Amino acid sequence: MEWKNFDLLESYKKLENISPVEIKELMAGENGAKRVREYQLPMGAGQLYSYAAEPVDDTILDVLQGLADEAELIEKYEQVYNGAVVNTGENRRVLHQLTRGQLGEDVIADGVNKREFYVSQQKKAAEFAEKVHAGEIVNEAGEKFTTAVQIGIGGSDLGPRALYMSLENWAKVNNTLKMEAKFISNVDPDDGSAVLASIDLSRAIFVLVSKSGTTLETLTNESFVKEALIKAGLNPAKHMVAVTSETSPLAGNPDYLDSFYMDDYIGGRYSSTSSVGGVILSLTFGPEIFARILNGAAEEDILAKNKDIRQNPAMLDAMIGVYERNFLGYSNTAVLPYSQAMIRFPAHLQQLDMESNGKSVNRFGEPVSYQTGPIIFGEPGTNGQHSFYQLLHQGTDIVPLQFVGFKKNQMDNDIVIQDSTSQQKLNANVAAQIMAFACGKEDENRNKYFAGGRPSSIIVGEQLIPEALGAILAHFENKVMFQGFVWNVNSFDQEGVQLGKLLAKKVLAKETDGALTAYSELLGIF
Amino acid sequence: MEWKNFDLLESYKKLENISPVEIKELMAGENGAKRVREYQLPMGAGQLYSYAAEPVDDTILDVLQGLADEAELIEKYEQVYNGAVVNTGENRRVLHQLTRGQLGEDVIADGVNKREFYVSQQKKAAEFAEKVHAGEIVNEAGEKFTTAVQIGIGGSDLGPRALYMSLENWAKVNNTLKMEAKFISNVDPDDGSAVLASIDLSRAIFVLVSKSGTTLETLTNESFVKEALIKAGLNPAKHMVAVTSETSPLAGNPDYLDSFYMDDYIGGRYSSTSSVGGVILSLTFGPEIFARILNGAAEEDILAKNKDIRQNPAMLDAMIGVYERNFLGYSNTAVLPYSQAMIRFPAHLQQLDMESNGKSVNRFGEPVSYQTGPIIFGEPGTNGQHSFYQLLHQGTDIVPLQFVGFKKNQMDNDIVIQDSTSQQKLNANVAAQIMAFACGKEDENRNKYFAGGRPSSIIVGEQLIPEALGAILAHFENKVMFQGFVWNVNSFDQEGVQLGKLLAKKVLAKETDGALTAYSELLGIF
Repeated sequence: MEWKNFDLLESYKKLENISPVEIKELMAGENGAKRVREYQLPMGAGQLYSYAAEPVDDTILDVLQGLADEAELIEKYEQVYNGAVVNTGENRRVLHQLTRGQLGEDVIADGVNKREFYVSQQKKAAEFAEKVHAGEIVNEAGEKFTTAVQIGIGGSDLGPRALYMSLENWAKVNNTLKMEAKFISNVDPDDGSAVLASIDLSRAIFVLVSKSGTTLETLTNESFVKEALIKAGLNPAKHMVAVTSETSPLAGNPDYLDSFYMDDYIGGRYSSTSSVGGVILSLTFGPEIFARILNGAAEEDILAKNKDIRQNPAMLDAMIGVYERNFLGYSNTAVLPYSQAMIRFPAHLQQLDMESNGKSVNRFGEPVSYQTGPIIFGEPGTNGQHSFYQLLHQGTDIVPLQFVGFKKNQMDNDIVIQDSTSQQKLNANVAAQIMAFACGKEDENRNKYFAGGRPSSIIVGEQLIPEALGAILAHFENKVMFQGFVWNVNSFDQEGVQLGKLLAKKVLAKETDGALTAYSELLGIF
Repeated sequence: MEWKNFDLLESYKKLENISPVEIKELMAGENGAKRVREYQLPMGAGQLYSYAAEPVDDTILDVLQGLADEAELIEKYEQVYNGAVVNTGENRRVLHQLTRGQLGEDVIADGVNKREFYVSQQKKAAEFAEKVHAGEIVNEAGEKFTTAVQIGIGGSDLGPRALYMSLENWAKVNNTLKMEAKFISNVDPDDGSAVLASIDLSRAIFVLVSKSGTTLETLTNESFVKEALIKAGLNPAKHMVAVTSETSPLAGNPDYLDSFYMDDYIGGRYSSTSSVGGVILSLTFGPEIFARILNGAAEEDILAKNKDIRQNPAMLDAMIGVYERNFLGYSNTAVLPYSQAMIRFPAHLQQLDMESNGKSVNRFGEPVSYQTGPIIFGEPGTNGQHSFYQLLHQGTDIVPLQFVGFKKNQMDNDIVIQDSTSQQKLNANVAAQIMAFACGKEDENRNKYFAGGRPSSIIVGEQLIPEALGAILAHFENKVMFQGFVWNVNSFDQEGVQLGKLLAKKVLAKETDGALTAYSELLGIF
């Protein structure tokens, strides 16, 4: 197996020379209908991935299959889940898939079987959550905890928050919302103040999440919360648990009710299915629901082992994205879930994708001469339609679109108006948008003309339930991983965040000069 | 005065031939400090706009001044506020600036003085809000209303929501939060269900916002809410007001407690300072606070009249953006407020900018051959730092950045840890990021190397108070307007949203064929 730069592959040359197809023509008439029926494949948890409106045909798909083969994507994925040190920059394994299943060989590291380690932490979180729910772990006054507040930033915030929000209302109507969750992430003191003002402190349990135990924002917010607890006459040690690595200063510390562990083999943005998501989601939804999320993700991880891109939705999505990025020249991807519950999912994918593949050097630290990870943004439909879709339809840049839709809503409360339910209207809109983007519309008035040729895919599920959410999460994680393999970047480090941290420390230590001093004055720090 | 395509201007050729400058060099050492002190100018409400880290020098600024002059930006702005029909596609005037002040001549339209009309609607909203606050307008049981729920989508949602969230916590600590606001926007029935489940229906007043009175999502959600009110034994007519145009079916309708008016001269995305924002913000914060937002915006509108780009922050910001878009080839702009309260402000700017200037035809409906509006995205710092900043620092695309920061936080609750407050840490981070992006860092390890040369500007204010918010809002509205003038597009229509609506109607009427039928089946509509 070899790690080679993308532009050294034969497939790269083939893709450079391939004739692009016209979505507009392919999607017209009965051929278009046939295409929709054929260009789809099963995803995990009963969902499907439809790529009929992507700029590919069987010839291009064959070349993309060749790329997947030549770049040895499945072999590299095998390396990942079998525990090879694929995060070379940080000299680490990459084991997030192991939090939801054993995909290959046993991975023994640091003297333990890592699958067993992750399962043991899930059990620990489950038992802890059950004790909280049962009133066995209570506050100083013997009362049950009602709110769980995650203190974390980046991967310790966005993923768990997106998952929580995606299921909060579903859990409410299904009577499985055990506790409400809140999140404090920003070092802006207004973030913590607002959350603390919105809860009953005496009934709140705080989940402090920092792998290293040294994240500036998170430790600052921890102190902020502890001060508030003390002011309210409460004992912080009775209101706080830690999610961290076993070697961190937070581990097994008597300042916490309990500690739950992750390790260096799980990057922040891939940590939703580890204890980072597990503790807060087990507390709020119950361990069974968290387990169902993991099951959905596990199904997707297994699908991702398939060498045939036509049977591997994450790899197919990844290869189409590479083709669009490097050969059609599209620099963005919009994520457009037609489900209000997924409102923060695009923000999670923004981190997942942009922090993983927003790199200019390959995994050996050598500059690459092709574009890597795209810019990700998105909002739920139909809201986005009344906002930035204008540019998507008629702007001067083409943006590939990733739609997500569900046949049923989550709360089972709907209304028929003008012969259709709201859910039907919602889905009529996503179907309409896909076709409007793909085929456009002729008009003599050029202001009302739509060029079409705007590519999209859609993930369709029955309902946004825990398994579906887990499968969608893993789909995108695996997509990003496969793209990183093609671009030959290390998708698992993030050196680009270091310089800002370093300079911020200098400002706080007043060790600055030149423009940094001037900006610090401007901002009222000095 | 002439409306000419950008590439026909002399300045276009000059900009094509100008030598770009290296931010990295300009911002280094004591010269950098000097640049920060000099490359700034006052904005409204005591804020300032700093553009030291933008890729301009005095030579380029002179050419950009020449562009502003040649494109007659100030003359065109004059046309706007004096009531010319600059929204040619829809044959409408563009009068949103008139909601906050009289900038030029009286504008008489439809037989009325439009400034007086907007002021009268503000007064009407103020009086209504005061009656609600005083308990003169109450629910069926004679109880005060406690929650105001806006039902609207796009411009009737994003702007008012962003403004509300920006000031909610500030209002709480300043004892001026009269009522809580909620927002229902998405036709996804889960959106309405979740909001309704979170409030006391009997104490809620709903603000239905639709200029035309025909927006599908909004009318559907209105029916959804009415059904819930009736089920709860409440009379919808006692719980709902309308914000609409005087000619809409919602106007003066006995189904509403009252109606407040806007008109066709205010586009949705520019309507935050009209009754669209005025009713909900007067109800929640009180009319005085809404008036303070308007005052801040008015200050900015006056600054925008200045012909000198070095004294006109919105025009300068606009010209730098055009230079970056068309001559440096940057297709995105990130909006990065270092204030958690502004979390939804980027989503508002995304609509404002992308819906205004995401066009491929000029104002006469002729295709243009240059790039127009960029793609806008963003999240608050420091959260974004732990997310997508990796790509911004080390990715293969350069993204110009618009930072916003404040010297003081809103809630006056802070903590000193390691000798600095959270607010100082927050601002140390924004100062550090600007310099990290601008100057980068040499490193023999290319994975730890930062190329720098990433441009940014920052708006700095004392505190995020109503005037500051109004000024920032108007700054971006005017920036987008000036850029639209340069690109010679109509920034005030949105034909690109029509095709999707049309096709969605066809789906709901089951009048589809081909791929649209196939997608409708896939999504479970048929």
